Amino acid sequence: MENEKRYNQIEAARKGIITDEMVRVAQVEELDAHIVREGIAQGEIVIFENKKNVKDDKKICGVGKGLRTKVNANIGTSRDWINCDEELEKLQMAEEAGADAVMDLSTGGNLKEIRAKIINAAHIPVGTVPVYEVLHTFCEQGKGIDAIKEEDFLRAVEQHGEEGVDFVTVHCGLTLDAVMKIKNQGRRGGIVSRGGSFLAHWMVRQGKENPYYTYFDELLTIAKRFDLVLSLGDGLRPGALADATDRGQIQELIVLGELQKRAFEAGVQVVIEGPGHVPLDQIETNIILEKKLCNNAPFYVLGPLVTDIAPGYDHIVSAIGGALAARYGADFLCYVTPSEHLRLPTVDDVREGVIASRIAAHAADVVKLGNKARRWDDVFSSYRQKRDWKRQISLSIDPKKAQELYEGKKPSIDDTCTMCGEYCSYRLSEKTFQEMEKGEKTEV
Amino acid sequence: MENEKRYNQIEAARKGIITDEMVRVAQVEELDAHIVREGIAQGEIVIFENKKNVKDDKKICGVGKGLRTKVNANIGTSRDWINCDEELEKLQMAEEAGADAVMDLSTGGNLKEIRAKIINAAHIPVGTVPVYEVLHTFCEQGKGIDAIKEEDFLRAVEQHGEEGVDFVTVHCGLTLDAVMKIKNQGRRGGIVSRGGSFLAHWMVRQGKENPYYTYFDELLTIAKRFDLVLSLGDGLRPGALADATDRGQIQELIVLGELQKRAFEAGVQVVIEGPGHVPLDQIETNIILEKKLCNNAPFYVLGPLVTDIAPGYDHIVSAIGGALAARYGADFLCYVTPSEHLRLPTVDDVREGVIASRIAAHAADVVKLGNKARRWDDVFSSYRQKRDWKRQISLSIDPKKAQELYEGKKPSIDDTCTMCGEYCSYRLSEKTFQEMEKGEKTEV
Repeated sequence: MENEKRYNQIEAARKGIITDEMVRVAQVEELDAHIVREGIAQGEIVIFENKKNVKDDKKICGVGKGLRTKVNANIGTSRDWINCDEELEKLQMAEEAGADAVMDLSTGGNLKEIRAKIINAAHIPVGTVPVYEVLHTFCEQGKGIDAIKEEDFLRAVEQHGEEGVDFVTVHCGLTLDAVMKIKNQGRRGGIVSRGGSFLAHWMVRQGKENPYYTYFDELLTIAKRFDLVLSLGDGLRPGALADATDRGQIQELIVLGELQKRAFEAGVQVVIEGPGHVPLDQIETNIILEKKLCNNAPFYVLGPLVTDIAPGYDHIVSAIGGALAARYGADFLCYVTPSEHLRLPTVDDVREGVIASRIAAHAADVVKLGNKARRWDDVFSSYRQKRDWKRQISLSIDPKKAQELYEGKKPSIDDTCTMCGEYCSYRLSEKTFQEMEKGEKTEV
Repeated sequence: MENEKRYNQIEAARKGIITDEMVRVAQVEELDAHIVREGIAQGEIVIFENKKNVKDDKKICGVGKGLRTKVNANIGTSRDWINCDEELEKLQMAEEAGADAVMDLSTGGNLKEIRAKIINAAHIPVGTVPVYEVLHTFCEQGKGIDAIKEEDFLRAVEQHGEEGVDFVTVHCGLTLDAVMKIKNQGRRGGIVSRGGSFLAHWMVRQGKENPYYTYFDELLTIAKRFDLVLSLGDGLRPGALADATDRGQIQELIVLGELQKRAFEAGVQVVIEGPGHVPLDQIETNIILEKKLCNNAPFYVLGPLVTDIAPGYDHIVSAIGGALAARYGADFLCYVTPSEHLRLPTVDDVREGVIASRIAAHAADVVKLGNKARRWDDVFSSYRQKRDWKRQISLSIDPKKAQELYEGKKPSIDDTCTMCGEYCSYRLSEKTFQEMEKGEKTEV
């Protein structure tokens, strides 16, 4: 088969083999391919590509140590808002805005059909949360949560793997013990992970341990078959500043660290998911903890949101936390849109969310990667200094938006903008330095 | 006169007098008035209130150590865009969105008239940059920069003081020596402060030292007359990441520290202005430097912007830098709007800019002030957990926006939103904990 890989990245890497995908990651990251191979062999880098979903027009996406910080955009229907075309528009917008991956989090309508369309249309890796499918299928069939069996949870992951999903969130670390800890401790926000709260509900009602934890070896076997990256979900991520870095969250992280090791040994690629709502002064601690407890596995954070009080602006709240998280070592930022906490996002929200996260990622990369990232700022600022509007705008993170604003109020002097007009500081200081040059020459 | 104070805050504070303004600051900050008095006596806190502009309906605004981080919104015309009514709308929007102060940076039209209208309409302190008036007046009269005399610079400050301006930016530290340093060193962005570039131009053309530096004592005499707070401007603030924390910037900061000391001794309230474009990893250093070099005077930063490449989204870029700056000790954030670097902002830009800065300020205050600030998040999150949409929305940083988004896609189940609908994690985990409660009781 042309469009199927025969190897797993991590196994190849351990044998010293540099795969095509490693070469492609190395190219876009401007790294030696040996470094990428070594990172994968150590479990510190992953490449999202299901063996069954190899496409020529799909952008390669490596995540982890030494690589550019990546951005994921969540799309997908909800039971209240089912419009597959709109979700495909969101996918297109996410790609246009520069997302490195998308997750289809659909929980409304025909999930399989929507997923197939998204996988088919995507030029970037696609992730999912198979547990949503489990929940939704049973609710749609009118059977409810109690009818769900342990094997249904594994079956959903296998099904998503078969369909070509590149990475899946599995809340493996959410044990009965951790749920009990949360209950005893009390929480401002409770369990805010949708998958986590569903799993916890199932576990408590059935009095059974989390099947993704109990049958973790079986899960690994499935993941291995597709080279499916497991994104070990944080079902107990804090959903309020008050809950950040609490016992429940860290308890789960410890378990995720154990599971990461087992996955790594079994040759399955893993990333670890992280918070959530975290005050500014706890972000560094959260990154250090993940890196220590989870053997430097790539860290995939949702936000972090540095305040609870700004619905409508949570893309900004998350950009603040995300920039800081990435600067301290988070590898993969899940975007948050202005609609977070309020409604399913619109197509325009997707753009706002992706750009805000990309700003955070780049601001961090300027520090993490040095000139490789800073080059963009430097070239950009040269154009700005020269008032070269055309080049400035085309080099902007969102040229369309920059153009739109600039054109919105056209200046009367070409090489300025309406902020300062002829009192433009760039123009003035250029003249000043010329004057100094002249002055010096005159004196000679 | 009813609306005129007879004392200066700093002189009263030194005599151990607690003024009405100190009491009002203490009330809104939930502090003992003695702490506010002591902060002012030490030059670590300022209160913006021109003796001639005391109004009953004007909100008190203290800035400095131990106080809530404040937000300033820049408004004002440019030569290319003169519409006084629009600027008054911006003022109103800034106040509605929660700005603590505004600066009228007008450089187009009848500046005196626009300023008078803004001062008259404002319910928050008003700042200006008198040097713009100097530049504009001479250019409008067709005389040009060369006709401007040293005394014109001081005259403008005096005039603004007479008119009731509460604080003025004066670029006192921009010496010929510093300009020469910048020229010799070279810069990606040159001089990006509008006032700074104009002053430098005048200095170089006339071969004279900065009059605000030369006649600093005269400036202090004027400031004292009105209890006008001097905002010592950073004419050499970096306008590109490449220029951050360079010799020119720090040279100027050293001079500002010397001048702060002279002002403090003379009984004049001072804040120090800071950058600008600064990479994430240099923000803490910039705050420590200012606090050390300028005797813990309040720090007023513009941004900082953590990347150069995102025009159209510079409110987000600045929120990232501002949050970090404030968390490390910056006291006063100057907002940046989405239109920064592209055009004069619109009324809507003003809202976006103020909210983004307020998010940054609050995220920092959660760390700096602890529960006093975190209370808001905690109460908010309790409503969120209970799916109390009415209270959540009314407690949001921008209730109008939150309402608008929530209403944009109404859920089919009242106590959820369309993001998850009936799969709402708050609902599910509430049920789970109830289940556990029941289970335990049954077992007993």
